[in-house]
Amino acid sequence: MGEKTKAHELAEKQKEISISEFFTKNRHLLGFDNPTRALLMAVKEAVDNSLDACDEASILPELIIEIKELSEERFRVIVEDNGPGILKQNLPNVFGKLLYGSKFHRYVQNRGQQGIGISAVVLYSQLTTGKPIKVISRISEKRPAYYYELNIDTLKNEPKILKENEVEWKKSHGIRVEIELEGRYLKGKQSVDEYVKQVAVVNPHAEIIYTNPDNEKINFPRATNELPRQAQEIKPHPYGLELGNLISMLSVTKARSLTGFFTGDFSRVGKKTAEEICEKAKIKSEASPRLITRDQAELLLKSIKETKIMAPSADCLSPIGAELLEKSMKKEFVADYYATVSRSPDVYRGFPFLIEVGIAYGGDLPKDEQVRLLRFANRVPLLYQQGACALTESFAETNWKPYGLQQSGLNPPVGPALVVVQISSVWVPFTSEAKEAVAHYPEIIKELKLALQDCGRKLGIYIRKHVHAQEQRDKANLFENYIPELASSLSNISGESKTEIEAKLKKILKKNIKEILGEINNEAQE
Amino acid sequence: MGEKTKAHELAEKQKEISISEFFTKNRHLLGFDNPTRALLMAVKEAVDNSLDACDEASILPELIIEIKELSEERFRVIVEDNGPGILKQNLPNVFGKLLYGSKFHRYVQNRGQQGIGISAVVLYSQLTTGKPIKVISRISEKRPAYYYELNIDTLKNEPKILKENEVEWKKSHGIRVEIELEGRYLKGKQSVDEYVKQVAVVNPHAEIIYTNPDNEKINFPRATNELPRQAQEIKPHPYGLELGNLISMLSVTKARSLTGFFTGDFSRVGKKTAEEICEKAKIKSEASPRLITRDQAELLLKSIKETKIMAPSADCLSPIGAELLEKSMKKEFVADYYATVSRSPDVYRGFPFLIEVGIAYGGDLPKDEQVRLLRFANRVPLLYQQGACALTESFAETNWKPYGLQQSGLNPPVGPALVVVQISSVWVPFTSEAKEAVAHYPEIIKELKLALQDCGRKLGIYIRKHVHAQEQRDKANLFENYIPELASSLSNISGESKTEIEAKLKKILKKNIKEILGEINNEAQE
Repeated sequence: MGEKTKAHELAEKQKEISISEFFTKNRHLLGFDNPTRALLMAVKEAVDNSLDACDEASILPELIIEIKELSEERFRVIVEDNGPGILKQNLPNVFGKLLYGSKFHRYVQNRGQQGIGISAVVLYSQLTTGKPIKVISRISEKRPAYYYELNIDTLKNEPKILKENEVEWKKSHGIRVEIELEGRYLKGKQSVDEYVKQVAVVNPHAEIIYTNPDNEKINFPRATNELPRQAQEIKPHPYGLELGNLISMLSVTKARSLTGFFTGDFSRVGKKTAEEICEKAKIKSEASPRLITRDQAELLLKSIKETKIMAPSADCLSPIGAELLEKSMKKEFVADYYATVSRSPDVYRGFPFLIEVGIAYGGDLPKDEQVRLLRFANRVPLLYQQGACALTESFAETNWKPYGLQQSGLNPPVGPALVVVQISSVWVPFTSEAKEAVAHYPEIIKELKLALQDCGRKLGIYIRKHVHAQEQRDKANLFENYIPELASSLSNISGESKTEIEAKLKKILKKNIKEILGEINNEAQE
Repeated sequence: MGEKTKAHELAEKQKEISISEFFTKNRHLLGFDNPTRALLMAVKEAVDNSLDACDEASILPELIIEIKELSEERFRVIVEDNGPGILKQNLPNVFGKLLYGSKFHRYVQNRGQQGIGISAVVLYSQLTTGKPIKVISRISEKRPAYYYELNIDTLKNEPKILKENEVEWKKSHGIRVEIELEGRYLKGKQSVDEYVKQVAVVNPHAEIIYTNPDNEKINFPRATNELPRQAQEIKPHPYGLELGNLISMLSVTKARSLTGFFTGDFSRVGKKTAEEICEKAKIKSEASPRLITRDQAELLLKSIKETKIMAPSADCLSPIGAELLEKSMKKEFVADYYATVSRSPDVYRGFPFLIEVGIAYGGDLPKDEQVRLLRFANRVPLLYQQGACALTESFAETNWKPYGLQQSGLNPPVGPALVVVQISSVWVPFTSEAKEAVAHYPEIIKELKLALQDCGRKLGIYIRKHVHAQEQRDKANLFENYIPELASSLSNISGESKTEIEAKLKKILKKNIKEILGEINNEAQE
């Protein structure tokens, strides 16, 4: 019985893989696949966290972002906020442990959601420079500020603290992170400069002071002093629940009856609905959740699907709002016309979400280029993976011709316009851990198209009324200039008075213009 | 000092996220985003593991795959192999723990690499049906077979064993897994049927018996009884090494000098090269690796980049080989002509890889459709995310017109052809955990294009020689049919003898055909 089989040999190689090792080897999954993108990711993850923390603590954010070029391929990124700070005992895990955070287990709209972001930056910094992250945190003026230098023990996925002491700091609360990494600084549509500008557009309540590696200091003042609506945490909705989740919820609930379980652990389920669910499944509503078998859980799930339950509340969402979106767009893009739409919330897989769209037209926008699309998810600009994103696809698949833009096939439209699209949700379904593209859920695509069409119609009315009318007037003026010459030719041929012919021609022109312009105005008032 | 700040409130919500929870919520990252794909993933992960285990144990694989439809949306998948089996004490972790496996930490070509695959299937099965996986394993005829029923404790990412006992089993060694899950069975290019067929093409040494949900039993016999070349495990190559990795390797090595470290822990570094590296960095080669500072490590890395080191060995790869690839293609696709190319190994980011390409032309292949591309990575068919894959892009960006196929712009070519592309590597850079698309590394794209062009040239010669020549002959025949009529008309006009004119015309035609065919043959011999 003691022989050593092939299975024994293989067994010696089987071992656990730490999540830090996994993402070190697979760092492209997190967006660190080239130096340009890596620099952006570092800024992005730090900024996401700062804005989230300020929003949760109801603080108007003041962000200082600074990138210093140390050598052609090495940069220092500093992000400082006035947020609530992080407790001393939690700080090392927040920065030095992957899959650790406050957002993953909750149903509430946040920029971060996975507990990976900032620690992935630390991992990448360590991989490319061997240097630790430097963090200052302070939670109140009554307490000292703490300074940490730490990196990640990748084998254990645990923070390794290299330095830890009290420091003097001018701020009464906030976080300051300083991180060194291999990167590349480029200008353009996927640059950090562009990212910061777009952050300002969808976060009109934030003040940002940004210094880029060229030592240009750019200020983005607030467009409003009002805090965004505080997103409320909600409980899961029974629709979209999966059997495995139901079984595990039943096994850990504190409720002592099914009625208590359904009304207490879910949103939008009252006593009557809970009893209806149990009755349809032919299970007593007083039954203890912990004694429910797999087969009974399956019956309950079936019965949930057959029971009418109110849609989830939208309190958990914090959209920008049509008015404020327009205000921010005006601040950052010079155009002749702006239109914005903020839809009502809808639901996919049980998660509430909401779509907002804005269009700017004319002005400084380039005339003969493809219309630029700016994508956002929970107020975070998405600069990469445009082709794989449901927002891009819905934009290109919308028929823009009726709204006055040129378009061929399923390509993006052409014209002097710019489109902003944002999805807000408690759980944005990203296609990868890098969180740059939204997955193709049919419910999301439907809402996107409705919002784009809605905005498109507004644009169409404007273009017909102002742009086409002007074009018509220009044409009429052009024609009017030829009337004297035409009249004189006609007078020569017919022998009639030139003045009379001229008068008649002007009358006809005037009459027709009125008709043409009348039509345009009527259409515009539809 | 006892006040409760906002930071305290937030701190209460901060906690660890288990990798199982993470992938349950993000199951689309693993490929479980719709029921059709989920069914494929379940078969795929089990088959990958079976083939890997057989290859490692030098066993000619015999696989039995069976899918039973339990209801419209629920299926039972059974995969049975004759591999080495798994030790009793390791089995629960292999199936019930994410990020556990034998392949992640080694530099050797395998189908699996991440330690996620099969446990992700268990996770999905549990989520959608609440049922455990059922596994039988036996490692030798001298030992009993063991039966397990288990699922995953998602909060802990640990296996939960529900049942465990000895069983009678007809096989002396192997694994049998049985799993129930929500799925959808469709025919077509992304179906399980297609997947199994393609597995047979690139694994000519495997015998597969497949029963689909329509109860059709399909046999794929072996094309060869020879085992593929056993891929050898290698050590990492110094090129492509990153600073963080070098630092952590220095801290855990058993070597007591830098020379020992470089020669012992890397491939392709001899004593002389090791000394050269140290000398350039101005660090003593006898220095203890554990005492090397971060700054010294940076100098060593710089010096590695400046030192000439032999390219990694290709022993770690197990390509199909041009001859065997052609043989398998002939077995599965009826065509008139086949060409295959197996390139020499190259390196990206320090990882060796190798490209193989095959083309089939004519025969049963549809004439006026886009040429179909079959993608493979380490002998695994890639059926999803075609658009995001470097293999697809290189295929479309190759100019196929000179090789006799139609093509417009950067679209795939059109014609009666089929192209097979495979990458073999110790670490295939996939764009997501679902492992369906290869990332765009320039070194990989370059090799792909060279291989495609090489195969294309062979095809071009064939098409000119056989297809164009036949077309010319057809045209000549058509003209010949008109000669009598033409001769009689010319005879009427000119008064010359019809027979004489006929003879002359035939002579001219014959002469010209020779010229035309001569040209074609000359070109073909280039």
